[in-house]
Amino acid sequence: MFPDGFFEYLRGINCSDVEVYAIPEGSVVFPKVPLMRVEGPIAVVQLLETPFVNLINFASLVTTNAARHRFVAGKSKTLLEFGLRRAQGPDGGMGASKYCYIGGFDATSNVAAGRLFGIPLRGTHSHAFVSSFMTLDEIKDKSLRKKASKSTCKDFVSLVQTWLNKLQKSKSLRGVFAETNQSELSAFISYALAFPDNFLALVDTYDVIRSGIPNFCAVALALNELGYKAVGIRLDSGDLAYLSCQVRKIFCCIEKEFGLSGFGKTSITASNDLNEETLDALNKQGHEVDTYGIGTYLVTCYAQAALGIVFKLVEINKQPRIKLSEDVSKVSIPCKKKIYRLYGKEGYPLVDIMTGEDEPPPKVGERILCRHPFEESKRAYVVPQHVEELLRCYSAGTSGKAREPLPPLKDIRERCIKQIEKMRPDHMRRLNPTPYKVSVSGKLYDFIHFLWLNEAPVGELQ
Amino acid sequence: MFPDGFFEYLRGINCSDVEVYAIPEGSVVFPKVPLMRVEGPIAVVQLLETPFVNLINFASLVTTNAARHRFVAGKSKTLLEFGLRRAQGPDGGMGASKYCYIGGFDATSNVAAGRLFGIPLRGTHSHAFVSSFMTLDEIKDKSLRKKASKSTCKDFVSLVQTWLNKLQKSKSLRGVFAETNQSELSAFISYALAFPDNFLALVDTYDVIRSGIPNFCAVALALNELGYKAVGIRLDSGDLAYLSCQVRKIFCCIEKEFGLSGFGKTSITASNDLNEETLDALNKQGHEVDTYGIGTYLVTCYAQAALGIVFKLVEINKQPRIKLSEDVSKVSIPCKKKIYRLYGKEGYPLVDIMTGEDEPPPKVGERILCRHPFEESKRAYVVPQHVEELLRCYSAGTSGKAREPLPPLKDIRERCIKQIEKMRPDHMRRLNPTPYKVSVSGKLYDFIHFLWLNEAPVGELQ
Repeated sequence: MFPDGFFEYLRGINCSDVEVYAIPEGSVVFPKVPLMRVEGPIAVVQLLETPFVNLINFASLVTTNAARHRFVAGKSKTLLEFGLRRAQGPDGGMGASKYCYIGGFDATSNVAAGRLFGIPLRGTHSHAFVSSFMTLDEIKDKSLRKKASKSTCKDFVSLVQTWLNKLQKSKSLRGVFAETNQSELSAFISYALAFPDNFLALVDTYDVIRSGIPNFCAVALALNELGYKAVGIRLDSGDLAYLSCQVRKIFCCIEKEFGLSGFGKTSITASNDLNEETLDALNKQGHEVDTYGIGTYLVTCYAQAALGIVFKLVEINKQPRIKLSEDVSKVSIPCKKKIYRLYGKEGYPLVDIMTGEDEPPPKVGERILCRHPFEESKRAYVVPQHVEELLRCYSAGTSGKAREPLPPLKDIRERCIKQIEKMRPDHMRRLNPTPYKVSVSGKLYDFIHFLWLNEAPVGELQ
Repeated sequence: MFPDGFFEYLRGINCSDVEVYAIPEGSVVFPKVPLMRVEGPIAVVQLLETPFVNLINFASLVTTNAARHRFVAGKSKTLLEFGLRRAQGPDGGMGASKYCYIGGFDATSNVAAGRLFGIPLRGTHSHAFVSSFMTLDEIKDKSLRKKASKSTCKDFVSLVQTWLNKLQKSKSLRGVFAETNQSELSAFISYALAFPDNFLALVDTYDVIRSGIPNFCAVALALNELGYKAVGIRLDSGDLAYLSCQVRKIFCCIEKEFGLSGFGKTSITASNDLNEETLDALNKQGHEVDTYGIGTYLVTCYAQAALGIVFKLVEINKQPRIKLSEDVSKVSIPCKKKIYRLYGKEGYPLVDIMTGEDEPPPKVGERILCRHPFEESKRAYVVPQHVEELLRCYSAGTSGKAREPLPPLKDIRERCIKQIEKMRPDHMRRLNPTPYKVSVSGKLYDFIHFLWLNEAPVGELQ
């Protein structure tokens, strides 16, 4: 279906005369404000539409989703992204890991993302690891060197069993612990022998309170005797609020009974289809979870699986263009524009304002009229205390402009976290937040409405 | 955190002794039935968990979603996948295009997927293409060669304008068409000049009935005069049921008034955030849409954004393993298993049954007991008329078994469509479908429950 020479034409295309302006990655942005402005030969720029929209839509969506999870979890919790297996293929998983980190997660279980992007790696073992063991006899090398010492414990398995006996006879825990599952115990011991400094046990393969916790504690106490500190446990099923509180009580009992300072604070990680709502519910119930591992709902953005970022032609050959629609929210804002964020006295962003490219920028201390782009009566005067121009140059084309540097991932993440902290709290409320205002200058307002009336046909009532 | 030599170990790993058995791609499958059985050294197989689960989860989910859309749209409609820009990155988009095709879509707008997988390509122009034009003067080369002829129409633009005049004066359409938008007309003419055999116009940039449709019809009638046949129009906003019916009426009027046989059947494509529910609503209201372009809701699987396929250890060193859970639906079915689909007299699949690897297979005409894996009282005798073993060998390891061939994409798609057609209609009902039965043999049932009681600790009431 293609004429001769079309592929040659495609092959010859390059983007050297395309200018790209964008709001820096990790910025808080609002509907209607262009995230990018792309200028150049129309055929080339049109070919960029799908790649840009594809790359920005999911990235922005999943970063936002991660930031929302962070917001509900609170600053003190550790958030781990565990979503690779539920993402849209390997690349979807890599994108999710990267942008969840930007959105405020602390680490990922996606090893490839750790290697490629330098994201901290965290994870625990699997249920399959536990059930791959049968008995303690399977542990061939039972020796473990004492931490920071040359002496070695020759039979770590026996040491664990001794501690398990003590726990089962403990006064304060009497009746809590049953006969524990031996394949689980064998798995925990093997894991601790391989990673004595990193012992984090998944305790729900059989029964958390009756088997997983006593097995974990026996190994942790044995490790402690050799100078190591167990990291903690992971709960992956059941009533996480209740179980985490029960487990915390047991840890505190053991700290007291065996004089093990700090054992009460052993880390509790929770996973199992967590999302914003379950985090919120956990907070309301009260819980003792320190770290959340979140996968499915995070990387698939289950609560809203798509973001509707679009690419619109707003000017061609210096002529402004508008896309009309019966649905006002779909009418595009014409013209090559500049965008400013205006800050108020208290340091919060007050409003974003779009102006025509050639209008003078808003000035600190000078009153400026900000108008809703479509609703005539919605307008306000603002006297900004600080003015930030949002679009920066990332590809200069032939303009000779200075190109913004591309910061490392860590800096983008920090920017994102700081930007969210800088927002006025009522804009960030989960229920009925105050809408943040997005406006146009008086001049741009008049022009939009002139163009709109000019392009739209007049109806005829019959 | 890794001991010396670990990376060397990883580098030395290969999958030559891993056996993979799987249900052929494009098969209808049910919860609890393993899609794959992977056998091999545990460390290697464990490393395969995440890649396999990542690759299968989204692929199965989006194929199912595509099949559901096809089911609601009906066989006679053309379904186009338009989702690249909303998928999880480029790879998510490629996966979506591939698996939507398998699930019964006809074509994609993802050109890379067309090139890589041979999926038919379909698309229309964008709104930006329309608004990139200003006036008819922009069209430099106005000539168009008549179809299958050496003679040329020197001024196609005038020919279109003549037809537009006739339409505006038409008796049967009097008062329907207003002054049309000239940038839109200019865009349509340019498109038709470039693709006279493939003229499909997006008609809602300004106003469908007053501008888009008369502009389209004028170009289509001019093309017809030169021996070409316009393909049709695309609606991307507004009330698709109402608009498609109005447009169909206009097409039929024109067919009648201008004696243009077949013009009434000009194709109508609809897009704009379509999903299963909107297709169902369109069917209930009545509409004249021939083709649907579906993007966001299809590729993000918005209605259910994740599928919970998991990877479980079921046997190690010939010892069966079970993963317990408070939630019975999460208890794994232990043992290396064979799986059979049993068909009834009318040719429909009746039940899937899992048996231990060494049990004799179900036989045609012989009664076999099928038991619910966990609910004691749910069981039934079945006399199969046909028995299909579901797991086939795709990687033989060192077993020497014959490897199943990997069919081309088209064959997988055909298998998928046929498999769905073969299902009993009450299983496929959208509201309250009859659950398809998944069962285990009596022997496997007994063994699961023996193992379960053996592994689970007994509670103590106090």
